[in-house]
Amino acid sequence: MQFTSERRLDDGVLEREFVLGEIPGTLWTPAAAPVPLILMAHNNGLPKAEPRLVARARYTAAQGYAVATIDAAGCGDRPRSAHDQQARAELRRAMQAGEPVDGIFESFVGPLVENAVPEWRAALDALLALPGINGPVGYSGWTAVGIRLAALEPRIAAAGFFAGGYVPLAQRAEARQVTVPLRFLLQWDDEGNPRQHALDLFDAFGSREKTLHANLGGHVGTPHFELEDSGRFFDRHLK
Amino acid sequence: MQFTSERRLDDGVLEREFVLGEIPGTLWTPAAAPVPLILMAHNNGLPKAEPRLVARARYTAAQGYAVATIDAAGCGDRPRSAHDQQARAELRRAMQAGEPVDGIFESFVGPLVENAVPEWRAALDALLALPGINGPVGYSGWTAVGIRLAALEPRIAAAGFFAGGYVPLAQRAEARQVTVPLRFLLQWDDEGNPRQHALDLFDAFGSREKTLHANLGGHVGTPHFELEDSGRFFDRHLK
Repeated sequence: MQFTSERRLDDGVLEREFVLGEIPGTLWTPAAAPVPLILMAHNNGLPKAEPRLVARARYTAAQGYAVATIDAAGCGDRPRSAHDQQARAELRRAMQAGEPVDGIFESFVGPLVENAVPEWRAALDALLALPGINGPVGYSGWTAVGIRLAALEPRIAAAGFFAGGYVPLAQRAEARQVTVPLRFLLQWDDEGNPRQHALDLFDAFGSREKTLHANLGGHVGTPHFELEDSGRFFDRHLK
Repeated sequence: MQFTSERRLDDGVLEREFVLGEIPGTLWTPAAAPVPLILMAHNNGLPKAEPRLVARARYTAAQGYAVATIDAAGCGDRPRSAHDQQARAELRRAMQAGEPVDGIFESFVGPLVENAVPEWRAALDALLALPGINGPVGYSGWTAVGIRLAALEPRIAAAGFFAGGYVPLAQRAEARQVTVPLRFLLQWDDEGNPRQHALDLFDAFGSREKTLHANLGGHVGTPHFELEDSGRFFDRHLK
């Protein structure tokens, strides 16, 4: 893992870009150390530089966590293959035409998740080797990657998922293997994300301690108090 | 309103029993004043002296609220008519026999709610006339009474409902008239309380700001952190 740039934010959080092989990532750490680690990702491979993720990461780091994110293959700062570009173009076309998109999502997001999880595990190895970062480890955000990661990776101690992305069939089946304390965030009127899918997924998780928070409104309408509550959830399980 | 007894609890909260006409009630107030008021009731007319309600009320008062509860007619400390006793016996018998109980609940809880709401409004008048208690007013607990009260009573500014009681058909229809900020608490595996009814009810509320919290477990398994979160919900809307 090589750091390529760093800057100190107003609240004392250090923001560092890194590369791990061909994987680009960002790490936010507070002034205090050692701190627990939270892995944070957007649903469907949205870029790590996406402003909502960055704001969430900075806020969380200021609460006393190391927060790390990486771009998935073909996403964010990483090169897109002709196949990636074709899949995205087809997805855009189908959405604009109002056609069913589940099949396209399955063929696009399914492999994205399969390929992303080993990269997140490699990043986890490298991050926990850094001074000032210790376990336990939390996961926040991209539901499908989080399901697979929590199912495979015993170092994940608690997870917060956002029910606003496509969850491939393989991860819907893997949900019962997730047994860590879970916080599942749902926007009640999320455009294009069927509510019943999310409720079924919540029901399927194997965790004995799981909480669903549903708020009125569309995909990006999550109230700010949920961000604060997410902090309390991780405080309960990681500190 | 006449106070009939009082005692000071360890945390400085004053616990007073009162009567308002034939309605018995309890009022908990913190040392500081003035404070907002929260009306608190158990689903289905469970007594005001029920230990879980008392613990919740004392905790909430210590957070800086006046908390009041009253017994509904035929419940708690109030005399039971022959009709009340017959209805309760029939309910117990049907539940033990595993028979459907919705019809019995409807005929028992429906009138209970209709009769309770004017009493809660009378109590609200009397409570707001006391020194040290000012608006705004919150409501917490018994869903069916809360729906009707929030629909009829403009002084209710925020409501927290527990989805673990029978909601009469009239109140399911009135739910869309509830427009205050709402916190709806659901136990995912609540025995005898169909989950889909609760989800449909959450969907029906007219409030623009509404949050559903669902936790794994049975009727009495609500995690303690939900009590703390309830406090933060009322702090946002009443303080």
